[in-house]
Amino acid sequence: MKLHGLACPSGGVLGGMVTMERTLVPAGEGRAVRVAAGRRVRVVDVEGGQVGDLFAFAADDPREHLSAAHTRSVTSRLFPRVGEAFVTDRRRPILTLEGDTSPGSHDMLIAACDPARYEGLGVPGHASCAGNLESALAEMGLSIATVPQPVNVFMRIPVEESGRLRWLAAESRAGDAVTFEAAMDCVVVVSACPQDLAGINGDGPTPMAIDVL
Amino acid sequence: MKLHGLACPSGGVLGGMVTMERTLVPAGEGRAVRVAAGRRVRVVDVEGGQVGDLFAFAADDPREHLSAAHTRSVTSRLFPRVGEAFVTDRRRPILTLEGDTSPGSHDMLIAACDPARYEGLGVPGHASCAGNLESALAEMGLSIATVPQPVNVFMRIPVEESGRLRWLAAESRAGDAVTFEAAMDCVVVVSACPQDLAGINGDGPTPMAIDVL
Repeated sequence: MKLHGLACPSGGVLGGMVTMERTLVPAGEGRAVRVAAGRRVRVVDVEGGQVGDLFAFAADDPREHLSAAHTRSVTSRLFPRVGEAFVTDRRRPILTLEGDTSPGSHDMLIAACDPARYEGLGVPGHASCAGNLESALAEMGLSIATVPQPVNVFMRIPVEESGRLRWLAAESRAGDAVTFEAAMDCVVVVSACPQDLAGINGDGPTPMAIDVL
Repeated sequence: MKLHGLACPSGGVLGGMVTMERTLVPAGEGRAVRVAAGRRVRVVDVEGGQVGDLFAFAADDPREHLSAAHTRSVTSRLFPRVGEAFVTDRRRPILTLEGDTSPGSHDMLIAACDPARYEGLGVPGHASCAGNLESALAEMGLSIATVPQPVNVFMRIPVEESGRLRWLAAESRAGDAVTFEAAMDCVVVVSACPQDLAGINGDGPTPMAIDVL
């Protein structure tokens, strides 16, 4: 039933079994999709080696958002395992981790890159995941007060015993995907991280895709 | 120059060398203090074994707050070392970790306990660090849109290699203290965590103190 790499931009029935709507996320940009409760949403690393910053908001009140801190508290883990749920800042499940075809490195510790990050790197005005989030939500007529800590799919930040964090290049392969089931009606935003100075995206930013199944 | 356990509620000169204003934080409650740039603020575990949830906000615009995610990103550590700074969501230093007399366990992964946490534990209406934060800020005429991830001083949440988090009783001793230097004019809030069901506060909540030096 997995349809990695198949594009079906306008939605449609494939083989009479799965309806999929694909939203392409151009390299370095962000896109938002609405996902109804019970539907699945899949984040695809189209070419491999690309980090995606994923955010999720309650459809009926985007002040309620997926919270990394509350998810760590509820799961007692740095990152949920398949079958476990990401929860909101009100501790309500919003996305359940359903499947992962990647080697399994994901991060929930590092903040979204933002204008201040790139000013610090000497490149003011650089595209950022925080800016991409705001633009993608604005396309839906939504705005938020603060940028939540993202779920950084495919981002490889191992934690050493000393508490030191290492920043390594993503090791996801072309077509690798993480699939979630929506536990409530929600808006999911994915930014194909534009970071091209810190090495996390390997040779540079590439596109991603968001499939709503 | 360390004056652990000395109370000087109205501020004053002690030995002609150090001026200290102590704010007592009753067990299970929260208090806010203003700290001018360059002043030091010390969080004291008065009786030992007590977790404090610490929050900090820019005095001139409390929408800017100490951000655990940005601090991890800037320091590449789960928790800063002495001499390193906690930064805000705009990546500006707000508090520098200056000293720590405790055994050194602190947490920046777990969300503040909140009404939803205690509803889940079957005790709706229980005091919470999130509620204490809002009350302490309200005393100063301040309000916030969302509760930031706190700096949980003395909280012992070891990270296992598998990514599992363990919740252990605080091992701080009576009088143990963490000292910060304010890098900007800020409001610092400490909640003496009211958690009495999860074991993190040992035999139960006890008072803390905030000393502004």
